[in-house]
Amino acid sequence: MYFDLLENAGSWLSEDDLQQARANLPIVYVDAIPVRVDSTGAVTEVGLLLRVLPDGSISRAVVSGRVLYRERIRDALMRHLEKDLGPLALPKLPASPQPFTVVEYFPDPTVTGFHDPRQHAISLAFIVPIEGECVPSQDALDLIWITPDSVTSIEFELEMVGGQGRLVRMALAHVGLLP
Amino acid sequence: MYFDLLENAGSWLSEDDLQQARANLPIVYVDAIPVRVDSTGAVTEVGLLLRVLPDGSISRAVVSGRVLYRERIRDALMRHLEKDLGPLALPKLPASPQPFTVVEYFPDPTVTGFHDPRQHAISLAFIVPIEGECVPSQDALDLIWITPDSVTSIEFELEMVGGQGRLVRMALAHVGLLP
Amino acid sequence: MYFDLLENAGSWLSEDDLQQARANLPIVYVDAIPVRVDSTGAVTEVGLLLRVLPDGSISRAVVSGRVLYRERIRDALMRHLEKDLGPLALPKLPASPQPFTVVEYFPDPTVTGFHDPRQHAISLAFIVPIEGECVPSQDALDLIWITPDSVTSIEFELEMVGGQGRLVRMALAHVGLLP
Amino acid sequence: MYFDLLENAGSWLSEDDLQQARANLPIVYVDAIPVRVDSTGAVTEVGLLLRVLPDGSISRAVVSGRVLYRERIRDALMRHLEKDLGPLALPKLPASPQPFTVVEYFPDPTVTGFHDPRQHAISLAFIVPIEGECVPSQDALDLIWITPDSVTSIEFELEMVGGQGRLVRMALAHVGLLP
Repeated sequence: MYFDLLENAGSWLSEDDLQQARANLPIVYVDAIPVRVDSTGAVTEVGLLLRVLPDGSISRAVVSGRVLYRERIRDALMRHLEKDLGPLALPKLPASPQPFTVVEYFPDPTVTGFHDPRQHAISLAFIVPIEGECVPSQDALDLIWITPDSVTSIEFELEMVGGQGRLVRMALAHVGLLP
Repeated sequence: MYFDLLENAGSWLSEDDLQQARANLPIVYVDAIPVRVDSTGAVTEVGLLLRVLPDGSISRAVVSGRVLYRERIRDALMRHLEKDLGPLALPKLPASPQPFTVVEYFPDPTVTGFHDPRQHAISLAFIVPIEGECVPSQDALDLIWITPDSVTSIEFELEMVGGQGRLVRMALAHVGLLP
Repeated sequence: MYFDLLENAGSWLSEDDLQQARANLPIVYVDAIPVRVDSTGAVTEVGLLLRVLPDGSISRAVVSGRVLYRERIRDALMRHLEKDLGPLALPKLPASPQPFTVVEYFPDPTVTGFHDPRQHAISLAFIVPIEGECVPSQDALDLIWITPDSVTSIEFELEMVGGQGRLVRMALAHVGLLP
Repeated sequence: MYFDLLENAGSWLSEDDLQQARANLPIVYVDAIPVRVDSTGAVTEVGLLLRVLPDGSISRAVVSGRVLYRERIRDALMRHLEKDLGPLALPKLPASPQPFTVVEYFPDPTVTGFHDPRQHAISLAFIVPIEGECVPSQDALDLIWITPDSVTSIEFELEMVGGQGRLVRMALAHVGLLP
C-alpha cells in the first residue's frame, strides 16, 4: 500500500515500467497483521509499525508489500515480514493460502474506502503470529504491540491511513476479538 | 488462465503493453466454479465449459479471467460469468470477498502444479451458484452440468489442463462433497 | 441463544431432559445473519428481528436456534429461518459448511463476551442472503432492514444483548463492510 | 469420533447420562489434523495416529474428541492434542475460531458419508502445525508422519474409517496440496 516505500526492490521492472504498469493494471499485494498469541493460539496483541509516508507524514501501519513476478505468495509474505520486523521475528504463516479477506485499494477513496493514491492494488490479507524478536528495520521507525481493546481506540485509528485502521478491526473480528 | 482467450478485451493496455506486463508482473485473475444448488444450498452439480485453447486443442474448464484496472473483483466475476454463461445465468456471488482458495499459476509447471504457459497469474477462486439459464457464449463451445461424483472421475480430470481438475476437487472439498 | 424461545420444538427430549443436558453439555446452535444483497452479491442491508426475551424485555436479534438430534446443519438453518422470517423468505444458504465464525456463548459473560444465561452454546454463524418476502412469525414481533452503517450505530448496539451486536459487526467485517 | 476412547474423562456427566445425551442431542467435537510445516508455513507432512477402536480393530486417525461443558474450543483442542501427542508436541492453534470445515458424523453412514455408530457428532475441524516432539500417549499406539502425496494413497485411505480419509483430503485441499 501507500506504506511500502521501496516497493520496486528486487523487481525485474525498471521504475518507469512499474509506473506504467501501475497506471494500467491492478497490482498484487500482501498485507500481514502481526500478532502475539498465547499458548492456546489466542491473540493477545497486535503489532503496528510507525512509518514515514512518501509525503513525509508519519503513520501507523501493518506489514504490506508487493508480490513480485514468479514469487510465491508465501515467499512475498516472508520477505516483507523480514524486511519490516527483522530476521529474527520468526513469523508463523498460516498453512492455508486462503486469506482472511481481500482488500481492494483504489486511487479513488470512495470506491471501497480502502485507498492508495498511487495505484489500484489487490491485497491478500493474513494474520501472522510472531514468535521471535522484532527489530524494526529499513523504513519502519518503530514497532509497538497493543492489546485488541486499545488498537481499536480512536487514537490509533486516527494514526492509520488508507483504511488500515479498518483492516486491523476486520482482523480482530476474524479472530473473535473485535471489542 | 490458459482458458481465457480474449483477456485483453476492455483493457486500457495495448496488446504490446499487456505482453510486457505479463513478462514482469503477476496478473490478477478470478476463477469461478459454477454450481447448481438445491433448495438448502447444497451443491448438486458442477458446470464445466468446453473450450478451444490458444494452441487449438479442446479442454474442459471453469470460468476464469483477468481483473481489469480499476475494476472491482465482484464486477470482474460478473463480467466473466456473463461472458461465458450468457446474460440470463443469474450468478449468485458470495457476500464475502474471501475466496475459498488462491491459485498461483506459474509459467513453470513444477512450482505449484498450477500452470499457465503465458504468465504468472494469481487467481482468487470462488464457488458461484447459478440460478438462471445458461447460454454458453463467445469462446465456450458448450457447457455441461456434472454431479460431484462424476466430475472427479479420471475421464473429466484428463479433459482439464493447467491444474483445473485439481481446482474443481478443491472446490468440492470446500463444500464438503469431495468423494 | 437467549433469543430462541421455543427451542425445544421438534426435539426428542422432554423439557426435563433438555434442562439436564443444558446443565452438562455444550449445545449446538446456528446463528444466521439475514442480509439483502445487490445484483453483484454485495450486502446492502442487514435484517434484525424484534423479540420478547424470556424475562419479558424486548431485544433486537439475528436468527438463532438449536440443531436437533440427527438434523443436518443446513436443515436447522432452513428451519429457523423459516420459523422467524416466514415460508416465502427464500434464504440462500452458502454452498460451504464453513461458518464465517464460531460463537461460544457461556453462562458466565466474562469468558468470551458472548453470553447465554441458560446454557453453554456453541454456535456456527452464517451470513444468509434473503431473496423473498419476509413475514416475521412466531416469537418475532417485527423485522427491520438496516444499512451496514446504521446497524453498527450505538442505538442498535444497545438494543441487542448477549453479544449479538458484536456478532453483527463481525459479519460486516467478513463481508468487507465494517464501517 | 469413533476414535476417541476415553471421551468421558473430565466430564461432569455420569456414563449413563452421557449415553442418554448421545441418544438425544448432537455432541460437539473438535477434529485436529496434525501437520509439520516448513519455515514458510507450507505443510510438508500429515500426522496420523494408530488406534485400537472400541470393537478391537485397528485404524489410522486424526486427533479428535469431545468439547466439555464450559470448556473453550481452544482448550478442548489443546487437551486432545496433548492427550494424543504428549505434553511436548507444541501445537500451534490457528488464531481464528473459524474451522476449515465442519464435519457432521451421523449414526446413519448414508447421510453425509461421515459416520459414527455411537452418536450424532458435529465436529469443528482445524489444521494444527506441530512444532515439538510427539510421544503418542494413552490410546494411540503409534504416530506416523506422511507426505501429502502418500497420505492420500489408497493404502492409507483404507486404514481410516468413518470418513477420516476424506477429512484428511479435505484438509489437504484447504492448504492447496490435494494431489
